[in-house]
Amino acid sequence: MKNKLPCVMTVAGSDSGAGAGIQADLKAMAAQGVYGITVITAVTAQNTLGVDQFQVLPPQMVEAQMDAVLRDFPVAAVKTGMLGNAGIVQAVVAKLQQYGLYSIVADPVMVAKSGDPLLEEDTQTAIREKLLPLSLVITPNIPEAEVLCGQAIESIEDMKKAARALHARGPAYVLLKGGHLQGEEELTDILFDGIRFYYYRAQRINTRHTHGTGCTYASAIAAHLALGRSVPQAVMAARCYLQRILPWDPGLGKGSGPMDHFAVWRDRGR
Amino acid sequence: MKNKLPCVMTVAGSDSGAGAGIQADLKAMAAQGVYGITVITAVTAQNTLGVDQFQVLPPQMVEAQMDAVLRDFPVAAVKTGMLGNAGIVQAVVAKLQQYGLYSIVADPVMVAKSGDPLLEEDTQTAIREKLLPLSLVITPNIPEAEVLCGQAIESIEDMKKAARALHARGPAYVLLKGGHLQGEEELTDILFDGIRFYYYRAQRINTRHTHGTGCTYASAIAAHLALGRSVPQAVMAARCYLQRILPWDPGLGKGSGPMDHFAVWRDRGR
Repeated sequence: MKNKLPCVMTVAGSDSGAGAGIQADLKAMAAQGVYGITVITAVTAQNTLGVDQFQVLPPQMVEAQMDAVLRDFPVAAVKTGMLGNAGIVQAVVAKLQQYGLYSIVADPVMVAKSGDPLLEEDTQTAIREKLLPLSLVITPNIPEAEVLCGQAIESIEDMKKAARALHARGPAYVLLKGGHLQGEEELTDILFDGIRFYYYRAQRINTRHTHGTGCTYASAIAAHLALGRSVPQAVMAARCYLQRILPWDPGLGKGSGPMDHFAVWRDRGR
Repeated sequence: MKNKLPCVMTVAGSDSGAGAGIQADLKAMAAQGVYGITVITAVTAQNTLGVDQFQVLPPQMVEAQMDAVLRDFPVAAVKTGMLGNAGIVQAVVAKLQQYGLYSIVADPVMVAKSGDPLLEEDTQTAIREKLLPLSLVITPNIPEAEVLCGQAIESIEDMKKAARALHARGPAYVLLKGGHLQGEEELTDILFDGIRFYYYRAQRINTRHTHGTGCTYASAIAAHLALGRSVPQAVMAARCYLQRILPWDPGLGKGSGPMDHFAVWRDRGR
């Protein structure tokens, strides 16, 4: 019985708690009906309260993983997450170019929840100068967009300005996620293609299970691109997926807990 | 909305092609309705044709991952796969004892498909002397059982002898998988609890998509233990799951391709 699955590759860190990183990516991709492939950039010892330790892999090991999978699987779209250091960013960008992969959703992971910068200056520069121009879509949240543009974002108008500034850096689409804007009952994500703005409005869901939402969102977008959707449609499908799973409480972890990526499927059977 | 998920931890290698290793474990666990947690022992650059490169992590990094997740998640069962070297086997066994985890399904990964031994002598010794006695179930295939017992296995009678010999080494249950016995249209897995033999007969499914079947089987058993089943019931549930997904052909990879872990769920929706 044939059941051909489109392939999507994630290049990101491993989260031992499986709420974020390649683990969240793999689950989000499976939940959209595509086959996820996982290139690990760093291994973390992590739970819902924080990162205890991490080990970044040599860029050469990241290249070897990309070569192994790209020679064997017909990868239709790529998601990038935490890339660890400038050497890895450069290695990943070079490999994507070598294999002619441009359907890239780049989640520019830069700032930890605490607000502390997560990445060294030269890594931020490599993301800004190498990865952004190659990407089909970038998916910063507000703190990340603030770091990338160097300006504060406190309103929808500020978001539109930042989206324009980020688009000028080269990506075909900028998805600026509005979840960090305070005081709104509704949240608005803004997609900009250089001409038009698309607005994705969603009810804010009160939950502590937000660990890995960024990874999941970007992975679901990449999955829907691999399924043949346009960028605006893929963003819509991914946003709908997030809204459907976020209300479910898997009741795990003492901190910012993981989501239940398959809640949508399991509750169908009931 | 509450949807409390039992937690199962896998301690194994990462397969970039996502057909085996922690990736297969995570998918198999999700497909049984439990939350998978992933402790990585080694990162491989791998596809369906073979392993290009690998990097084994320091035992201390494996311990750090186990500490991070075991302090935060209520792990109900454990699956172990490729442990890499004797230092990691010892570290894993010590941590399992420290946290009082004995619901352990150990897949004693030892021999590559080619027949070449995959692990150093001292690693095999550590598995035999440290991990086996602590395990609730071990799940060797025939080549692995031959290495562990030092005797050839060519019939069901030989399998029963080997299961007795392996049980004497300490695990509460031995599941000896019969897939490698030639010439049978049916395959028989044998479970031995020290007194009784349980036979799991299944139709042999002709497919090249067998990459990761061992990981998937052991992970599904661990998942069903976490869901409250007895060992004989968990083996039955896991065997049924394998038989349901194996006929589906995801059409991926040029070699021993991956399975479609969610075929069972997706085809429901049609």
